[in-house]
Amino acid sequence: MTSALFDPLFGADRVAARLDDASWVAALVAVEVALSRAAAEHGVVPAADADRIEAAAASLRIDPAALGRAAVEGGNPVIPLVRMLRSAAGEAGRSVHPGATSQDVMDTAAVLLVGWAGEVVLEDLRGAADAAARLAREHRDTPMIARTLGQQALPTTFGLVAAGWCVGLDRARVRLAEVIGALPVQFGGAAGTLAALHPHGPAVAASLARALRLADAAPWHTERTRIGELAGALAVAAGACAKPATDVVLLSGTELGEVSEAAPGDSSSMPHKRNPIAAVTARAAARRAPGLAAVLLAAADHEHQRAAGPWHAEWQTIAELLRATGGAGARLRASLEGLGVHPDRMAANLALTAEADGPPGHAGELVDRLLAQRP
Amino acid sequence: MTSALFDPLFGADRVAARLDDASWVAALVAVEVALSRAAAEHGVVPAADADRIEAAAASLRIDPAALGRAAVEGGNPVIPLVRMLRSAAGEAGRSVHPGATSQDVMDTAAVLLVGWAGEVVLEDLRGAADAAARLAREHRDTPMIARTLGQQALPTTFGLVAAGWCVGLDRARVRLAEVIGALPVQFGGAAGTLAALHPHGPAVAASLARALRLADAAPWHTERTRIGELAGALAVAAGACAKPATDVVLLSGTELGEVSEAAPGDSSSMPHKRNPIAAVTARAAARRAPGLAAVLLAAADHEHQRAAGPWHAEWQTIAELLRATGGAGARLRASLEGLGVHPDRMAANLALTAEADGPPGHAGELVDRLLAQRP
Amino acid sequence: MTSALFDPLFGADRVAARLDDASWVAALVAVEVALSRAAAEHGVVPAADADRIEAAAASLRIDPAALGRAAVEGGNPVIPLVRMLRSAAGEAGRSVHPGATSQDVMDTAAVLLVGWAGEVVLEDLRGAADAAARLAREHRDTPMIARTLGQQALPTTFGLVAAGWCVGLDRARVRLAEVIGALPVQFGGAAGTLAALHPHGPAVAASLARALRLADAAPWHTERTRIGELAGALAVAAGACAKPATDVVLLSGTELGEVSEAAPGDSSSMPHKRNPIAAVTARAAARRAPGLAAVLLAAADHEHQRAAGPWHAEWQTIAELLRATGGAGARLRASLEGLGVHPDRMAANLALTAEADGPPGHAGELVDRLLAQRP
Amino acid sequence: MTSALFDPLFGADRVAARLDDASWVAALVAVEVALSRAAAEHGVVPAADADRIEAAAASLRIDPAALGRAAVEGGNPVIPLVRMLRSAAGEAGRSVHPGATSQDVMDTAAVLLVGWAGEVVLEDLRGAADAAARLAREHRDTPMIARTLGQQALPTTFGLVAAGWCVGLDRARVRLAEVIGALPVQFGGAAGTLAALHPHGPAVAASLARALRLADAAPWHTERTRIGELAGALAVAAGACAKPATDVVLLSGTELGEVSEAAPGDSSSMPHKRNPIAAVTARAAARRAPGLAAVLLAAADHEHQRAAGPWHAEWQTIAELLRATGGAGARLRASLEGLGVHPDRMAANLALTAEADGPPGHAGELVDRLLAQRP
Repeated sequence: MTSALFDPLFGADRVAARLDDASWVAALVAVEVALSRAAAEHGVVPAADADRIEAAAASLRIDPAALGRAAVEGGNPVIPLVRMLRSAAGEAGRSVHPGATSQDVMDTAAVLLVGWAGEVVLEDLRGAADAAARLAREHRDTPMIARTLGQQALPTTFGLVAAGWCVGLDRARVRLAEVIGALPVQFGGAAGTLAALHPHGPAVAASLARALRLADAAPWHTERTRIGELAGALAVAAGACAKPATDVVLLSGTELGEVSEAAPGDSSSMPHKRNPIAAVTARAAARRAPGLAAVLLAAADHEHQRAAGPWHAEWQTIAELLRATGGAGARLRASLEGLGVHPDRMAANLALTAEADGPPGHAGELVDRLLAQRP
Repeated sequence: MTSALFDPLFGADRVAARLDDASWVAALVAVEVALSRAAAEHGVVPAADADRIEAAAASLRIDPAALGRAAVEGGNPVIPLVRMLRSAAGEAGRSVHPGATSQDVMDTAAVLLVGWAGEVVLEDLRGAADAAARLAREHRDTPMIARTLGQQALPTTFGLVAAGWCVGLDRARVRLAEVIGALPVQFGGAAGTLAALHPHGPAVAASLARALRLADAAPWHTERTRIGELAGALAVAAGACAKPATDVVLLSGTELGEVSEAAPGDSSSMPHKRNPIAAVTARAAARRAPGLAAVLLAAADHEHQRAAGPWHAEWQTIAELLRATGGAGARLRASLEGLGVHPDRMAANLALTAEADGPPGHAGELVDRLLAQRP
Repeated sequence: MTSALFDPLFGADRVAARLDDASWVAALVAVEVALSRAAAEHGVVPAADADRIEAAAASLRIDPAALGRAAVEGGNPVIPLVRMLRSAAGEAGRSVHPGATSQDVMDTAAVLLVGWAGEVVLEDLRGAADAAARLAREHRDTPMIARTLGQQALPTTFGLVAAGWCVGLDRARVRLAEVIGALPVQFGGAAGTLAALHPHGPAVAASLARALRLADAAPWHTERTRIGELAGALAVAAGACAKPATDVVLLSGTELGEVSEAAPGDSSSMPHKRNPIAAVTARAAARRAPGLAAVLLAAADHEHQRAAGPWHAEWQTIAELLRATGGAGARLRASLEGLGVHPDRMAANLALTAEADGPPGHAGELVDRLLAQRP
Repeated sequence: MTSALFDPLFGADRVAARLDDASWVAALVAVEVALSRAAAEHGVVPAADADRIEAAAASLRIDPAALGRAAVEGGNPVIPLVRMLRSAAGEAGRSVHPGATSQDVMDTAAVLLVGWAGEVVLEDLRGAADAAARLAREHRDTPMIARTLGQQALPTTFGLVAAGWCVGLDRARVRLAEVIGALPVQFGGAAGTLAALHPHGPAVAASLARALRLADAAPWHTERTRIGELAGALAVAAGACAKPATDVVLLSGTELGEVSEAAPGDSSSMPHKRNPIAAVTARAAARRAPGLAAVLLAAADHEHQRAAGPWHAEWQTIAELLRATGGAGARLRASLEGLGVHPDRMAANLALTAEADGPPGHAGELVDRLLAQRP
């Protein structure tokens, strides 16, 4: 789920660093440690055990590859991880994983990971939107031709075009932040009834949520609307990147020449090329999102009280989707932050169509209105 | 986009009646009439013209097939519709389509249609959730075995299972209602600058929104996050139907026999069969949603100021997705409203696994908590 | 599954006429009639019954809406259709649907429908490829600039560009024809064992296949690789249309102006526009295919001996996918058959980049080679 | 694109080892070396240079992370790789990358990688089919109940069920092998005209193909039907795995108990659980394929002579899809090779439905027929 070769190119290096095997292991361990602590808070396990488990976890060096191999037998990495933690914690090992089922730990770890990686994604979406807003302000009144179905239509301003980019990126970011921020802890025990900790189940769940700074919620083992919402929000954000990236590619075309990237790519065979490579790779990353989102949306049909496949299909797909969307945001940000705008070429192109004349209507006011509404 | 043969079977008959050709024509006409009226409000066209256009539209009989054939040339049905309205309105024809571009009318009509069809979808989602809530209340304490990865695990109650169905359906409905309710009017004119109505553009847009009871917004011709959000919300709702439908199919299996539909299907060859056909067709309808949503999410890359394909790809896909999700909701509702629950079979199955013993933890409390939170 | 309003615009009118409710009914009836005949061939039912069933079917007027409503109860239209046929055939009704299960009739009818609709799709793909081949021949040596990542690169010829379009369309068509041609009869009876006709089962199946001019095969009720192959082949064909349609849109752009459609679209607001609307709608239709294909590919997980949802999800999705791909082919064909090519603009654009000089390499030879290989 | 943590669990460890960063680098280098050699064959570059390049490449240690970082600027790893090779080859560096464009090397390397990884995928599909065939032979006459829509229907045999699995796996494998085997070399130069090597272009391409044991073909830079076919074939293969995996999960259910895996998974909380974890993870892996395939199918719309995004979106998606499908095959193989079959439970379940009586028709013959046709 990381690729040293491709991640930089597709803007995913920062986000992927929070989605790699080590991050998964760290998240899983963090959940187990917090769970023992939460159980201790309610007297379910001895507080001293929780201390010792935390210490043992801190000094434990877990090799993701070894954990991965050990995960095959039981079907998820939590089972061998619990064994390792128990063994490392000595007598306190009895207080590892109290009242929990593997899915409690996997889901909560995934929520942590989404939060960690999401922070990077949101930051780059914000950066891209800020860059678009700056372009919109600077070119509030720079005339250019609007193009519809590829044809010159009537005048607009580059500011209004960039303001539209900004609005899409802002809208997508706000929704994504909302969805990520609402992802709750998972804690239900083997059957989703919190039976093993009765009568302390809900209290332990609440403490666990608090410790991990997550929302509390009743168990949602097979109620996956949240995962679907996350998928939708990430794919919408990728789409909000695809739109300006597509425009940058088109406006950078030799014959249009209205914008250019700060660091256009060269070519292995043509030194004169000035490829808008940040926008190109942003588009490429964004293109991967809808299919990945569809996999998650289709995985809503979790059977009974733990799905036999749909659940497991989520893990890597969520990570891939974060990588794709995060990459699109990062590369678009790079493209927009360095975007050169060429009013002379805009003017020259505008002159090509005699009928496309007249002032650009309410364009300037619309820019002001859109920027004033920024979240 | 409607099928008299398949719509009833897949629960789409009610929703499809609001998505058929006649509905599209009605929506398009409604937008043009409201637009002339809104323009008249601001003195852009004579008020008498708006009256006459409304009257002409009311008496105009538009054959969708003829409109469809005439739409080929220009690439959308608005162009020939405007011609028809102008011709029907006589001298007032000059006040048809003031300051508008085809996309203003298509997008706003699509928003109206989504509202009309969405009403049915939301109603069936609510009905299905209500049925699940009733089952949860009635079987709050009915013990059954929880199954994880297809295997008997530990006890739960049927009430908790049904409460989980209810939560998913409620969550999906609330979000879908929010997304649909926020879909705004589209009005930007040829280049998205409202130039033709300057300085009255924004005021006319606001009046148009008010007349159609839609939110107002700056033009969003190629800023399609709203369409992506709609796609996500509809697919999540379909998934929220797929989960209980899948459980009903599995729990109805001959060997489990824990639930049965009120009107199970017969078979063309086996009179003894009792097929949970409402749940089966709900699953089938829901299965179509993720791919349709992916088409919409992938269509975010609208080029320039009007997309050359991605926009046009939305029209039928939105309608199909509403049909699929609406159908899933309607069929699931039928399944759950008539669902027979068999505590004796639940008890017998529970007895199969000796280790799966003990009381169902916090199940009852969780049912209460989940039902108390219903929106 | 048909829309008089949208089908002409998206090129789907011809193909949709073979996918409408009446076509489904006709296909279902054709299968039942052929089945009674095939059973009679092997003495399973009286030959006179088969005659009478054929006559009764010929004079039966089946209202798809009534059949659709009656289909809800049992979960598919075959169950009520069998009742209607039995009732219409009087005493011979005993020989309707011998040894069959609903899926035998639905699947075989779907295969017939795919054949009928596929014929139109293949014809338009062939027409589009022929148009591309003509363009390639005529412009074998017409110089134009090759563009990579949107930037001018080095010279090529328009003939080579068009030859590439042709190759993609031909390859896609040949594979699609192969897949459709290999779709076999479905006949397995209630459990897929042909038990009810033992020992005549396989012989009746073979006769049925022969009568319907389909390939024979062992029952494939839940072995759906063929449906997946069909999905893949249709989506590849849609993609083969999307490529030239995208190029036409881009090359038609005002600033490039290297090609133009014969009947460009006008605009509801801008008389000077010349929109490449056939290519635009071809792109739009093609955009819908990948998501629809994904639905079919994801529906491979048919449970047990008849799927509880995945099977039912195929019916309308196959029809939609044929409509989308067929529409893309038809609109692309219209675009290419009337495409105007402008060597003067190509030459002028070529002159923009000084470094993009020199002869277009092996372009001419490659055109000859590609056209010579046409299937 | 590899995960030491998750790959073993989802069966992807073997296939991922041929898709990792090092494999990409090896493939890219192999193409460059072979290209210099092919050019030398036709006197385009000195043969001594080709020797020296091969030697330099053999001793060059390329860090994928460094290559990845250097790839950002130009937009693909070929550009910095060529620099590295040129620098390592000294004077012979002039003969590195003769007449080629980055896409020639990336595409050909991807084809090599697909071949390497595909070998593993095909092997596991074959192994899974062989295991199914063995089960079919051994249980040719073992009676069990057929289930349709989840309900007991009529008798079949387990042999026929397993034979159906085998047929799907075989069909998918044969097609996948055909598609992979036909993937050709890519060699077209900057504009797809082979201009830089004129008049030796086609001859060098043919030599390059021969050296890499690939098919020869005219340049297909933006004619991507082959990639779509690959996507379709891989997703069909994943579906062919999903079907038996789903059946194994269902038949392993506690209440059915007709099969069990050799190494069922334990549980972190319930020692009595016997989870069919190989089938569960096979299903999970297979679930990821349709969305990934849709991304590739949607990427067919390559613009002009090199796509600005759709091409770049292919690289990681192809690798992910190979990982998903390969993983599904490997885990299904493990499931089927160790599958325990329980005729006693089959008999007991069969007895539950009185009407489901009688001999299983032609089941045995069908098994024989299906196994006799194995490719």
